[in-house]
Amino acid sequence: MNIEAPIGVFDSGVGGLTVAREIMQQIPNERIVYFGDTARVPYGSKSKETIIKYSKQIIRFLQNEGVKAIVIACNTASAFALEEMRREFDIPIIGVINSGARAASYTTKNGKVGIIGTEGTINSGMYNEVLKGINPKLEVVTKACPLFVPLVEEGFVDDPITTEVVKRYLEELKDKDIDTLILGCTHYPLLRETIAKVMGPGVQLVNPAYETALELKNLLLNKNLANKKETEERSKMYKFYVSDAAKKFERFADSILPFEIPKTKQISVDE
Amino acid sequence: MNIEAPIGVFDSGVGGLTVAREIMQQIPNERIVYFGDTARVPYGSKSKETIIKYSKQIIRFLQNEGVKAIVIACNTASAFALEEMRREFDIPIIGVINSGARAASYTTKNGKVGIIGTEGTINSGMYNEVLKGINPKLEVVTKACPLFVPLVEEGFVDDPITTEVVKRYLEELKDKDIDTLILGCTHYPLLRETIAKVMGPGVQLVNPAYETALELKNLLLNKNLANKKETEERSKMYKFYVSDAAKKFERFADSILPFEIPKTKQISVDE
Repeated sequence: MNIEAPIGVFDSGVGGLTVAREIMQQIPNERIVYFGDTARVPYGSKSKETIIKYSKQIIRFLQNEGVKAIVIACNTASAFALEEMRREFDIPIIGVINSGARAASYTTKNGKVGIIGTEGTINSGMYNEVLKGINPKLEVVTKACPLFVPLVEEGFVDDPITTEVVKRYLEELKDKDIDTLILGCTHYPLLRETIAKVMGPGVQLVNPAYETALELKNLLLNKNLANKKETEERSKMYKFYVSDAAKKFERFADSILPFEIPKTKQISVDE
Repeated sequence: MNIEAPIGVFDSGVGGLTVAREIMQQIPNERIVYFGDTARVPYGSKSKETIIKYSKQIIRFLQNEGVKAIVIACNTASAFALEEMRREFDIPIIGVINSGARAASYTTKNGKVGIIGTEGTINSGMYNEVLKGINPKLEVVTKACPLFVPLVEEGFVDDPITTEVVKRYLEELKDKDIDTLILGCTHYPLLRETIAKVMGPGVQLVNPAYETALELKNLLLNKNLANKKETEERSKMYKFYVSDAAKKFERFADSILPFEIPKTKQISVDE
């Protein structure tokens, strides 16, 4: 395997860019091929079978792009498809769920962990399963927050309406005495300040995007896959693909990444 | 053509059920085959090319079900694909946009019409085009309201948060002196009361779902396609298909239709 080969990162849309951003910061030598499935977003309300089908199509595409490892930057796809994809493909694959769960298990002091995410992630129960696998004594409380993604995508980030929605969703978590809360959807770090304010200083927020970049870094070192070559120009290191609406993707990417992204290409992976 | 054949109705998801509901009420003799593209919802943020591709796949499926006419119950698909589908397929096809625009042109007294809808519908400019085609003197004001659909699907229908979002979106329309407002997305009739309260008694709301059922009724009579046979049992007259998450679809359908729907089948149209 060529150590200068890129990392494949995929998500249902723009949210996975928070994961790509962490990888760019923590392991700046690595090239990235990003795929956002904007034609089929959101994944959160779709069934397991559908998510597995989509994930296979995308990984096949990323393999054709010559990637050396895959990051599933979408919580729903990590929840539904990670195990199956590891069986199916002969390439290292990591997902945001495991990284987030591990960090939460280190962070909690009272053993009570909250998880927020889309309906798909929460209903899958996968975060609970992974957390219990790490430490069966952990108490886990979950809450689906389906409006957070549309609010972020509408740009209502620092907004009284969003604060009201955050309060409404998190109200029931506040009575549960948790000291750690996993931001179990890639869009949620963008609401981090509002969530922190509503939950109060007694609750630590865990950002799986950050933890995933850390896990990827270790994986590449352990498997002798880390790129030692000096950093090139950003625009040559990163490639962005989407299945629809490339212009809209570029606008969102430019608003959250610290450099102007190269032209995003629209492609189809379902044929 | 068999006059007992069903009407094909399709939408990106559950929203088109407000159109199916109007057809059931106004022409109760007609059978219906409904397809909700829940695997690929929402259409509102997708490109024209993608929506045309999806619409073709769905109409081919509905033709295999033996339908005698097609209703595009999705505003985005009506905006992007109606003309193309009429050229492509040899079957009567109507869309919610034309019906809604015609009703608005009859309703307005001061010639100033507002349109609200998803990004796709609003950016397509199709409502404006059709309205101007009917009466070039009409003044048209538009506003995309991307949060309305997720709020309705989350069940926040009669809710102070939704009232705040409605106020935020409609604020700029209130200064424009419109006397007629087209509810240009199939979910919006479910927010009708809140929208009416915010806009005040001087603004008439136009529900394209209602107008589309009326147009379909006339079309079937004019083409001698109306079913004269007595109404059968509801559960035998209506068939529901989705591309994903059939259970969730059934729950939503049962909440807005006045009878329990038959089992919804999950099928794939993209292969």
